[in-house]
Amino acid sequence: MTEPTARPTRAQQRRLTEDRILTAARQLFAELGYDRTTIRAVASAAGVDAGLVMHYFGSKDLLFARATETADDLGEIGPGGATEALLTSLGQRLTDEPEASLAVLRSMLTNADAADRYRTAAQPQLDQLTNAIPAPDAALRASLLSAIIHGVLAERYLLRLTTLADASPDQIITLLRPCFESLTTTPPDHPA
Amino acid sequence: MTEPTARPTRAQQRRLTEDRILTAARQLFAELGYDRTTIRAVASAAGVDAGLVMHYFGSKDLLFARATETADDLGEIGPGGATEALLTSLGQRLTDEPEASLAVLRSMLTNADAADRYRTAAQPQLDQLTNAIPAPDAALRASLLSAIIHGVLAERYLLRLTTLADASPDQIITLLRPCFESLTTTPPDHPA
Repeated sequence: MTEPTARPTRAQQRRLTEDRILTAARQLFAELGYDRTTIRAVASAAGVDAGLVMHYFGSKDLLFARATETADDLGEIGPGGATEALLTSLGQRLTDEPEASLAVLRSMLTNADAADRYRTAAQPQLDQLTNAIPAPDAALRASLLSAIIHGVLAERYLLRLTTLADASPDQIITLLRPCFESLTTTPPDHPA
Repeated sequence: MTEPTARPTRAQQRRLTEDRILTAARQLFAELGYDRTTIRAVASAAGVDAGLVMHYFGSKDLLFARATETADDLGEIGPGGATEALLTSLGQRLTDEPEASLAVLRSMLTNADAADRYRTAAQPQLDQLTNAIPAPDAALRASLLSAIIHGVLAERYLLRLTTLADASPDQIITLLRPCFESLTTTPPDHPA
């Protein structure tokens, strides 16, 4: 029988601590970018020792990789469902500040290694999106959609441009829907 | 009578030197961002003394302002001509690497002052675009268009994402046209 106040197991405890470190890392990478974020500052924000961060993650580079692995998550894209998958993912990121995405955006413009790592990490998501677009130039369309989403997130959260920062997720999604539809589908009079 | 090999006047000479400094400044701000660009490095790249840069421009902040003042230039927007003005401006910036825009993009994510200065400098262009869009949410539409353009330029030139970096300006413009049209005009069945 489980005790009512069962202590977390060692593995559970480690996962909780890792999560706390990853949350702190995402916030600092998003705010300061890759170069100015130190393991020491992450450890301090998470309330742990810097040695423990190194023990759990190995290096700043690997910590960045783990902290940002959900940055461009689109979930499963059903057939013909690229627009909805993109708008759902964007809607979530316009509702709750997407620290992982912001960590990537702030870091990849200031650190070449972070940019390389991001390019590699984002490729499967881009490929998945490309495969969901029935057009010969699908890869370019997927890249443009990704660029548009990143531009909107950067100006809403990192630059806090007033109009974009104040708009509701619904307003933004409604305005972007036709734009996304035009990029994910080929008009019927233009054969794919 | 003017001599056949007339020397430039002092004013002409100063303008030529200023242009050389501004070109060097745009390149360095675009490559390194605001924080890591020094007056000394700009002077050296332009082949002049650092004191001269200070004498002509006053401070790094003012040099950045002058170097980036053309970043978002849209020219005149005729009535109903927002889409064409945006696509023409974007087409030019996809053809010739737009150092002023890149200097702004790289800098504004890493330096709060550069971001503030950019917000102020870009407002007249955003207002002009807003006024050219016949819709009640014109300001938000203008901000989204600006965010989209910045996203595309950042991923083509700063991150050099392969598909976007390799695409021709025409391909990109053709794909973005319906997207821009949907943002600059209100569909006829939705009253403005």
